[in-house]
Amino acid sequence: MTTVLDPAATSVGASLTTFTAALSRPRGFGDASLRRRRPGDIELLGGIPDDSALPVSELLASAQRVLSDERAGAGAFQYSQSAGLDELRAWIAAREGVAPERVIVTNGGFHGLSLSVLALIERGAPVAVDNPVFPLFLRALELSAGRAVPISVGPHGLDVDELEHHLRGGGRPAAVYTVPDFHNPSQGTLPSEQRVRLVELAERYGFVVLADNPYRELRFRGTDADQRVLSESDRVVHVNTFSKTLGPGLRLGWVVAAPELVEAFVRVRNRQDSHTSTLEQRLVIDLLTHDDTWFDRTLERARALYRERADVLAGALRERLGELVEVEDPEGGFFLWPRITLPGLDPARLAEASAERGATYQRGDFFSSSGRPEFTDRVRLAYGDRDVATLREFVARFGDAVDAVAAGTDR
Amino acid sequence: MTTVLDPAATSVGASLTTFTAALSRPRGFGDASLRRRRPGDIELLGGIPDDSALPVSELLASAQRVLSDERAGAGAFQYSQSAGLDELRAWIAAREGVAPERVIVTNGGFHGLSLSVLALIERGAPVAVDNPVFPLFLRALELSAGRAVPISVGPHGLDVDELEHHLRGGGRPAAVYTVPDFHNPSQGTLPSEQRVRLVELAERYGFVVLADNPYRELRFRGTDADQRVLSESDRVVHVNTFSKTLGPGLRLGWVVAAPELVEAFVRVRNRQDSHTSTLEQRLVIDLLTHDDTWFDRTLERARALYRERADVLAGALRERLGELVEVEDPEGGFFLWPRITLPGLDPARLAEASAERGATYQRGDFFSSSGRPEFTDRVRLAYGDRDVATLREFVARFGDAVDAVAAGTDR
Repeated sequence: MTTVLDPAATSVGASLTTFTAALSRPRGFGDASLRRRRPGDIELLGGIPDDSALPVSELLASAQRVLSDERAGAGAFQYSQSAGLDELRAWIAAREGVAPERVIVTNGGFHGLSLSVLALIERGAPVAVDNPVFPLFLRALELSAGRAVPISVGPHGLDVDELEHHLRGGGRPAAVYTVPDFHNPSQGTLPSEQRVRLVELAERYGFVVLADNPYRELRFRGTDADQRVLSESDRVVHVNTFSKTLGPGLRLGWVVAAPELVEAFVRVRNRQDSHTSTLEQRLVIDLLTHDDTWFDRTLERARALYRERADVLAGALRERLGELVEVEDPEGGFFLWPRITLPGLDPARLAEASAERGATYQRGDFFSSSGRPEFTDRVRLAYGDRDVATLREFVARFGDAVDAVAAGTDR
Repeated sequence: MTTVLDPAATSVGASLTTFTAALSRPRGFGDASLRRRRPGDIELLGGIPDDSALPVSELLASAQRVLSDERAGAGAFQYSQSAGLDELRAWIAAREGVAPERVIVTNGGFHGLSLSVLALIERGAPVAVDNPVFPLFLRALELSAGRAVPISVGPHGLDVDELEHHLRGGGRPAAVYTVPDFHNPSQGTLPSEQRVRLVELAERYGFVVLADNPYRELRFRGTDADQRVLSESDRVVHVNTFSKTLGPGLRLGWVVAAPELVEAFVRVRNRQDSHTSTLEQRLVIDLLTHDDTWFDRTLERARALYRERADVLAGALRERLGELVEVEDPEGGFFLWPRITLPGLDPARLAEASAERGATYQRGDFFSSSGRPEFTDRVRLAYGDRDVATLREFVARFGDAVDAVAAGTDR
């Protein structure tokens, strides 16, 4: 006799792997569907570049050059190498100051993190992570059921002293995840000497540094920290992207890593989607190389745009809230991480009061990697894709919300 | 005291996960780097569409429409939904005759298989697969360390009787993988009544059918089998792609599945690269909808092209090799699967003799899923991207190789 199952007893959902069934649903951060969106709401939610900084007409010109010859253009529609097209790897390598074999093209920075987790984090292994942390990294970490070990991030990025203390105390993370430039969410940049120390620790203790650097090209004041140390060490996977410069919708980024890691990433990639769109790579190669001053000129304009927005937002916050806010002027990137100095502030209450007034942002406590409610007095404000008038209006609404919570008149 | 590791003792390669370190390196099939390529060699290796059938000028026209307005065009550079853009899902859903929520956009057909393996194959679970099989599916199966259980494929696709026998005998595969239309490598198409039986077995025994259907739009003779049964059942993941019609370099495909599986795939996807390029989806939406007769007209031309190539290749083989070859006229797709009737044929010897004469193909034994050397008398010839003169020259060279092996004069 055959065992015949009752089809009603098992829906196809019961076929999901334990891995897939265990993946967390977004809560708060990263879930647009949870938002109550109303016309006129001002959202400072995501690290999104401004439409006006994106190369719409320039990419069309590239398409005209790449596709005007039917025969040559057809190559853009055919299979290509998993590590990326040679010309794109070469351009990236030249900009990073490394050999092309250290570069693999990815579908954006997050994809580089995802490949790194699969390739380098053994199931259930401990991973030291920024605290506060870019929350979507914790989502990627679910691929390996990695255990997040929080390491503090201060005004100058990851606290390397705290990490060293953890290591000396016997901590053996498989990897250390940090955003070195214009930290997300907390603005700071890891100084060059701390980068060198971090790499030395990685070599001594045998871990890998996952350096997630999507904002590095968007420095608009101050002095650049050492990028080379993150691209040249075999112990660092330096994750970058065109998302914040050419546009996140392109899903085009890269990783710089030891050649043997690049080979491993290619093997993983060959079990996913084989390679990034040949067409898109061809278009972007043309965009970057047709006029080799274009990318830097474009970045200059973008930096000026984002600097103005950062300064307007920080200035308006100080002007409106006075001693109720502490805010640092950022040196680059897309985020402010102000502290609201109301004693005993309930972050849910402030976020709700602000949303009721049509001003939404990411709550600081969403960025805790400790599992405890931390950063309850912080808010992350993303100014990349909002013009200065909108930012000023945001502050007016947000200021009213702070006042209302302070006065207890918000409910 | 701290345990300080000797950095020389652990290269970064030692940091690779056991999963990654265990991924197989390509052997034979799918490894271009193993080929000795010489000028003038004729390769009938891959399921690749012809350059002349790809929409180069049409996609440029789409780019002009999508990107000519700076403001509207910028949307193509921004983040979008993980399941794909609504307009593309709607177009696909209409073509499949299903609701849009059953569709998720992927980076090509292989990506759909990869997502299916992650979401539906528990680690180490048995998976019934075509024998002969598309070998790269076995590579995707490594994501879950799935165990392939071979089920014969005959002239009419998967042997559903053999599958049922396996199930009645207690076999409990998590999934059944098959190519229903113009099987890769063996040409056959699963008849409608066998599709219905396959779905009934899936419902009764609680497995998922992974129906990998990249060639289905390329039928150039005969009558289409039922596609709906593969798209409407909650027990089937119907994997499709634009790779063979618009070009594999686009890495653009889709899956039709039960809405709860689509949601699960989105959760996995959100740990990979978030979504397929917005720009590429926008361009293809325009391409498919600007003139709603365009896609079918383009397919008509492509089918005529591939039919001629298939017929020239099959005819030339019969003419040149006579009783030394058995070959069926295909009804669609990109492959011939001829049998060479030399008794005791050594497939490596024939492949080498042919390669020496500048004619390369995929050996039949590369497609065995049983772990045993099967299909040693078969060769897979891919004619999609070779013109008729080239195909005739291939047969002249290959015929000489068969003669030489038959006469023992090849070494």
